[in-house]
Amino acid sequence: MAEHIGIDVGGTFIKAGLVAGDGSIIDSVKLPTDVQGGVEAVEARILEAVEGLESGTLESAALSLSKGPSRTGTIGIGLPGIVDPREGVVRLSPNIPCWNDYPARERLGRLLGTVVRVENDANCAALAEAWLGAGRDLESFLLVTLGTGVGGGVFLSGRLWRGDGGRGGEVGHVVVDPDGLPCGCGARGCLETVSSSTAILREARRAGLKGNVEDLAGRARDGGHDESILFERAGRALGIALAAWLNIIDVHAIIVAGGMQPVLDLLEGPARAEIASRAYGLDVGAVRLLGATFGEDAGIVGAVRLAAGFPSP
Amino acid sequence: MAEHIGIDVGGTFIKAGLVAGDGSIIDSVKLPTDVQGGVEAVEARILEAVEGLESGTLESAALSLSKGPSRTGTIGIGLPGIVDPREGVVRLSPNIPCWNDYPARERLGRLLGTVVRVENDANCAALAEAWLGAGRDLESFLLVTLGTGVGGGVFLSGRLWRGDGGRGGEVGHVVVDPDGLPCGCGARGCLETVSSSTAILREARRAGLKGNVEDLAGRARDGGHDESILFERAGRALGIALAAWLNIIDVHAIIVAGGMQPVLDLLEGPARAEIASRAYGLDVGAVRLLGATFGEDAGIVGAVRLAAGFPSP
Repeated sequence: MAEHIGIDVGGTFIKAGLVAGDGSIIDSVKLPTDVQGGVEAVEARILEAVEGLESGTLESAALSLSKGPSRTGTIGIGLPGIVDPREGVVRLSPNIPCWNDYPARERLGRLLGTVVRVENDANCAALAEAWLGAGRDLESFLLVTLGTGVGGGVFLSGRLWRGDGGRGGEVGHVVVDPDGLPCGCGARGCLETVSSSTAILREARRAGLKGNVEDLAGRARDGGHDESILFERAGRALGIALAAWLNIIDVHAIIVAGGMQPVLDLLEGPARAEIASRAYGLDVGAVRLLGATFGEDAGIVGAVRLAAGFPSP
Repeated sequence: MAEHIGIDVGGTFIKAGLVAGDGSIIDSVKLPTDVQGGVEAVEARILEAVEGLESGTLESAALSLSKGPSRTGTIGIGLPGIVDPREGVVRLSPNIPCWNDYPARERLGRLLGTVVRVENDANCAALAEAWLGAGRDLESFLLVTLGTGVGGGVFLSGRLWRGDGGRGGEVGHVVVDPDGLPCGCGARGCLETVSSSTAILREARRAGLKGNVEDLAGRARDGGHDESILFERAGRALGIALAAWLNIIDVHAIIVAGGMQPVLDLLEGPARAEIASRAYGLDVGAVRLLGATFGEDAGIVGAVRLAAGFPSP
């Protein structure tokens, strides 16, 4: 596999990387996403990042912006939100609202002068893990990205599972409490409303606790009662959602990624307790909760795997 | 595909059928399951049913019981409970408790003197629907069997999806209310505790309502307020569980089978309302809720499809 460019477009940053055939990152560029600027501003930043990569410096990239280069080699792009796999259209993108119903494959292909493949960012992370990470030896797994939001990707029989509408792996919106708190998606009691870092910090403030998730986790590990309750609650909700996964698909490997991955030790016990009681006829000892191999670079590496044509149904 | 014998072992009846290559049932035999009699009694009934089928009459079958015939042709057998697909062992069988950890493939193969394939009964129903029923033209679907219990089968990319432990499609144990009523599986608030016919009848009695599910449905269709509430509640819970399916796997076709299939009209509206609010970014209009084609014969027909070697991962 030759080297490829992978792009990870987030609500805060756009990252572009030149990645070798063995998955190592040769060079990368990170620029702020100009969400307020609208569609054209976001697109301009993506082009800027790619040209920065190609020229090796951002300064010379700015000079070549008007050139409209014709590239060879497919570029893979991970995007936040629901990406229709057949049409290559972003259907819904809460973090980049100007991209709702955005024809990403067509517009970004024209912008970058080459064939592009677009995919949901958590699906890209799943591709990275399947290729070179914690899922390398797994035929099937669920990847859960636990961060400010909760997303995921599904890998089945060696292939990324997108589903009919590209929504496969949206495990953050599995209901863990039907009458729970309102979620950004419009429903109530989604996993994201309990087990995201946003939810943990909200509950911490409500309980008068200070600090970020790492601070809270440190105090929980030191025996802090109120802090422990926060992670206990988040872990139990994670377990309820994972039990749904196990009851429906029964794949025993689950990879946890995202900003909350470092506190998986605090979530795992309560999650396992819920799985043990709620996954019908399952020996919870057979369930593997694995930390992701890739952190920040998962999106770029997965996008490159996408560009190189990872098999998918 | 030549004719095959398919067997459907339930907690109440054992059904065996001789099924032609086109799926039509040439002959069938139905005998009561002697659950109280233990392993040997259940096995004896299975043999009796097969021999009854072969001889064409139950009387002559009884005479040949001691012959221990050596058969040719694979026999497919659907079993209630969790069937380990690799080992051919029944891990857990609430309806035939003497079959917990029962090495079904080995023992039934020896009993019947031929190669047998064993599979969970709801998975057999999914095979039947995929072969000749409502799933005939579908690459992927979820089958939900709504009856005294709630089970299911998952079909993905043209193959039955068993999962790592044969528990794929156990959608009856997806949590719809974490603090809900106790379920037979040991957890609380499983779909089965709200949307099974057992649950509907329990709630009906509690509300002082008489009759079976059909009676209650008839009165609900005629505008009966209390009866309507029963089906509204069951339909909403079904929708919550289906939203989990849609958020995780995003396959838009769902086939409903089982004793509650005739009341799908009462469940569909409330189920769709929950899906609309809980399936993140999904147009609920894209979701198809289909009635199963096969009723009582699904198990036999699916078992025959299993015997004939339907592709599976």
